[in-house]
Amino acid sequence: MSESLAPRAAALDAADELAGARKLFALDDAVYLDGNSLGALPAHVPDRIADVVTRQWGQLRIRSWTEGDWWTAPERIGDRIAPLVGAAPGRIVVGDSTSVNVFKAVVGAVRLNPDPARTDVLVDATTFPTDGYIAESAARMTGRRIVPVAPGELAGALGPATAAVLLNHVDYRSGRLHDLPSLTAAVHEAGALAVWDLCHSAGALPVGLDAHGVDLAVGCTYKYLNGGPGSPAYLYVAQRHQAAFDSPLPGWTSHEDPFAMSHAYTPAGGAVRGRVGTPDILSMLALEAALDVWDGVSIDTVRAKSLALTDFFLECVAAYVPEGRVTSLTPAAHAERGSQIALRCDEAPRVMDELIARGVIGDLRRPDVLRFGFTPLYVGFADAERAARVLAEVLSEQPRD
Amino acid sequence: MSESLAPRAAALDAADELAGARKLFALDDAVYLDGNSLGALPAHVPDRIADVVTRQWGQLRIRSWTEGDWWTAPERIGDRIAPLVGAAPGRIVVGDSTSVNVFKAVVGAVRLNPDPARTDVLVDATTFPTDGYIAESAARMTGRRIVPVAPGELAGALGPATAAVLLNHVDYRSGRLHDLPSLTAAVHEAGALAVWDLCHSAGALPVGLDAHGVDLAVGCTYKYLNGGPGSPAYLYVAQRHQAAFDSPLPGWTSHEDPFAMSHAYTPAGGAVRGRVGTPDILSMLALEAALDVWDGVSIDTVRAKSLALTDFFLECVAAYVPEGRVTSLTPAAHAERGSQIALRCDEAPRVMDELIARGVIGDLRRPDVLRFGFTPLYVGFADAERAARVLAEVLSEQPRD
Repeated sequence: MSESLAPRAAALDAADELAGARKLFALDDAVYLDGNSLGALPAHVPDRIADVVTRQWGQLRIRSWTEGDWWTAPERIGDRIAPLVGAAPGRIVVGDSTSVNVFKAVVGAVRLNPDPARTDVLVDATTFPTDGYIAESAARMTGRRIVPVAPGELAGALGPATAAVLLNHVDYRSGRLHDLPSLTAAVHEAGALAVWDLCHSAGALPVGLDAHGVDLAVGCTYKYLNGGPGSPAYLYVAQRHQAAFDSPLPGWTSHEDPFAMSHAYTPAGGAVRGRVGTPDILSMLALEAALDVWDGVSIDTVRAKSLALTDFFLECVAAYVPEGRVTSLTPAAHAERGSQIALRCDEAPRVMDELIARGVIGDLRRPDVLRFGFTPLYVGFADAERAARVLAEVLSEQPRD
Repeated sequence: MSESLAPRAAALDAADELAGARKLFALDDAVYLDGNSLGALPAHVPDRIADVVTRQWGQLRIRSWTEGDWWTAPERIGDRIAPLVGAAPGRIVVGDSTSVNVFKAVVGAVRLNPDPARTDVLVDATTFPTDGYIAESAARMTGRRIVPVAPGELAGALGPATAAVLLNHVDYRSGRLHDLPSLTAAVHEAGALAVWDLCHSAGALPVGLDAHGVDLAVGCTYKYLNGGPGSPAYLYVAQRHQAAFDSPLPGWTSHEDPFAMSHAYTPAGGAVRGRVGTPDILSMLALEAALDVWDGVSIDTVRAKSLALTDFFLECVAAYVPEGRVTSLTPAAHAERGSQIALRCDEAPRVMDELIARGVIGDLRRPDVLRFGFTPLYVGFADAERAARVLAEVLSEQPRD
């Protein structure tokens, strides 16, 4: 092993303007590099949840729907997420799972672009599978067909038959960041609508939904937004589409006057139209509390630290890990890198087990990918150095397959 | 006012074999008759949620998905609900809102009965609005049409054009109980599938899904099942339909091997096929904890107490409330009564405000319905007597409109 990079790590941590955010989280001595799967617990969330359960539900009970913070939670929390993804207030609503929101968004996009000659919904062929499965269902139910396409080949696939395109901003496996502004522009050039999945970018890097003219977007809140396991996802609808947005799931809470209990459906305006059923309050208010950690944090600062962290981790891996044992699947170019590093490794399953046993928590993507997520609010440079060092130790002890 | 019925109430409470269940809930001195909207907090739930948040999320983090109780929660909790609605294990899956599950169920029913001559989806015209809105969307997206029909007129509306029928077991407004066995048989006689919404019956009375051959069913868990505000709903698919059930929301967690991250969708067998996205763990495990209050409780005993409570409340209202001020919309016949009493009252909004101010918590259904839910696990006969007494006091002080 080459010279230790620990002193460099210490210097980088000392200069890190986000270093103070780590104390906002409940963390232990492990290096937690799985925040791109499940964000760590913000330390103040348990007390807030206890209040929601014991006082708001247990004591106020039904009054919390009208007198408390319950009914408007989906749009209120949407407005808390909005600045992190470059959206103005009133464009994001929280609720349901990412999959359900993909369905709303893809069906909504096709209905916003209803020319029957536009028969195709292009779907990122490298996407997280649920997006493909759900887009397939959305296409089937709107009389369209799915065309899988790699994001790099999108330009050649777009055409007069394209109704909508569903893309992932950051690939969940490789960590590749796609060029949202230029891809969105290309989609628009072809007369189609762009739907973006922000699961692996929101909270890790600037998105700029409004600025880049994205049509619809969805994302989860349990990764970089630390909302808790399975916390509600969100839907973004650009302002210019809101009046015509036609949800396939027009539940009662998206009605313009839900408590009129009218048998005729009249949709509410704005983001509220993306609501469906009764909001899941425990999970929603846990998410709302979790978002407090973003107060005063600039997403540009987060992005700068994320790139510095992943650069440094790759440098440590190159320095410590014997040649040829791992290969980065994550692009070296900053413009193409999200906030994770994916390393291909022949012995990946055994290596990840051993890393976890030694307090370096990443995850495995079968069959051979070691995935390390870097969450700038609570991961530091010493963590990155230790992760690479332990990885080198584990590999040096593991026979090659 | 006539002679007090308080001594009768005391005697009935003394003989109540469910009286001991009340101590399982966090209750105060109010009479809580809104458990048909939001069930009371089971007293042990806050500690269980604190463990989920602080230890499972905060300390174990991502390990809880694989080593803990998270991943299998939807089907495991479905199996806890199953005996309360007369279903065998493996037929119910928990997750998403009731509205989303109505969509799965109605689309699923049409796809199970795909004869194009069956153009109609009959929907209870008296139903909670979201069922109608969502069924309309399901019909639109499967090339069918909605036909609203009052449950009493169902027999005449069924025919060779009927694909599926969506009915509410208990009407949310009037508290009328519909005859699930005979209506299901009539639907089957017409060659159609029966989808039942159990929101206002599950946990209040026997349902008998398997025994009566119901095809699909949905229900919420935050009323009589006390799962907490907006807690996840559930979907039942009869065993004979599971292999052909074709969900419109085929999210990755319904895949037969979700972590293969395959681009081809192969649905899991059994109830798991009704899953969609990542389960919402905080809300789900709160519900799971809440279901502990049913341990050792017979739903037949619950039903017997429910009818005794609503009988007694109507008796107290008749005895105490001046003639002509309220009219019960809830059927007198036990076979047609759910677990609530709905009283029409000209001054309903002001009266309900005043009842709540005096510690009798019901709710208002605009414009003129006072709704009182009787949850046998924690409402007693003295509560019913007090509610009627306070109602009489309020009305005697209120000018008639």
